Amino acid sequence: MAALEHLIDALRRLPGVGQKSAQRMAYHLLQHDRAGAQQLAAGLTAALAAVQTCSQCQGFAEAPICSVCSDASRDASLLAVVETPADQAVLERSGSYRGYYFVLGGRVSPIDGRGPREIGAEALLARAANSRVREVILATSFTAEGEATAYVLGEALKARGLSVTRLARGVPVGSELEFVDLGTLAHALADRR
Amino acid sequence: MAALEHLIDALRRLPGVGQKSAQRMAYHLLQHDRAGAQQLAAGLTAALAAVQTCSQCQGFAEAPICSVCSDASRDASLLAVVETPADQAVLERSGSYRGYYFVLGGRVSPIDGRGPREIGAEALLARAANSRVREVILATSFTAEGEATAYVLGEALKARGLSVTRLARGVPVGSELEFVDLGTLAHALADRR
Repeated sequence: MAALEHLIDALRRLPGVGQKSAQRMAYHLLQHDRAGAQQLAAGLTAALAAVQTCSQCQGFAEAPICSVCSDASRDASLLAVVETPADQAVLERSGSYRGYYFVLGGRVSPIDGRGPREIGAEALLARAANSRVREVILATSFTAEGEATAYVLGEALKARGLSVTRLARGVPVGSELEFVDLGTLAHALADRR
Repeated sequence: MAALEHLIDALRRLPGVGQKSAQRMAYHLLQHDRAGAQQLAAGLTAALAAVQTCSQCQGFAEAPICSVCSDASRDASLLAVVETPADQAVLERSGSYRGYYFVLGGRVSPIDGRGPREIGAEALLARAANSRVREVILATSFTAEGEATAYVLGEALKARGLSVTRLARGVPVGSELEFVDLGTLAHALADRR
């Protein structure tokens, strides 16, 4: 069953999908949801053709310049730096940011040989050099690598006279204090307002 | 981002994939594994075209009659009845069955209006009427619905003078007795040999 085996192999390339899940997916699609399989094949092909990299923010775009970058009504004094297009999408969905974005190619990771150059620091500095940018919000993750990325980029941006900020650290909305980790609690206390 | 949204919707149709996983998959494919996305689209299209239903066992086939059914060296006196093509594949991989198969369309489920007719009992009886079949092995699941399916089909097959068996129930290989459930243990005791 060559075609079935090839499909299972292809499904295994999805993140979080192992051999068992891939088998289950393949059998499900072929036995119960052939329309879904067709939809998925078409969706993949269409997305591969349509989704490209925005020449301005390096995020996803379905045109040379993405819909955010080409929206002139946004606040040009703000530039949010995120690690991935997915992070950009999350910030957008929060509905409380009206500036522009710059999407890095991940975060610095000396172990994997990824320094500032590899994640696109030069393109960020060029983008931030736009005279209307006043504040750069470093919205990288609050992990060791995300913090390192923010530190390295922050130093370079400050040296160019830009105001650099970081997202607030604190207690997540909806969480009970008892279950919040101590590091977060310490930050929430220090930054109380 | 219409193409991206469509891709996420299509990925959600995979079993066990919710909104968050689908987003993660779509972003991963488009950002880090475009070759994988291409491979998956091609794999789906090829499998949809190649994989059909075997006219003899109702399992998956890449020809009108599947490779198992067209293998004349198999033991024609044995017919294993399974619920799905996936179950058939598992039995095949065990390497200890050399007879033929019949693949049901699931299991009886009165709540969902699925009776013996809906899962293909008539085609099974027609297949089992082949004069060379001596024993029908009911390899349905050991769940309430699987047992009900085995019972209904077993009665009909016995009425036609066929010998009907069920897979052995017992302690799984590699398991410690302490952690085996009591129902399984009771069966393993009763069927000791």
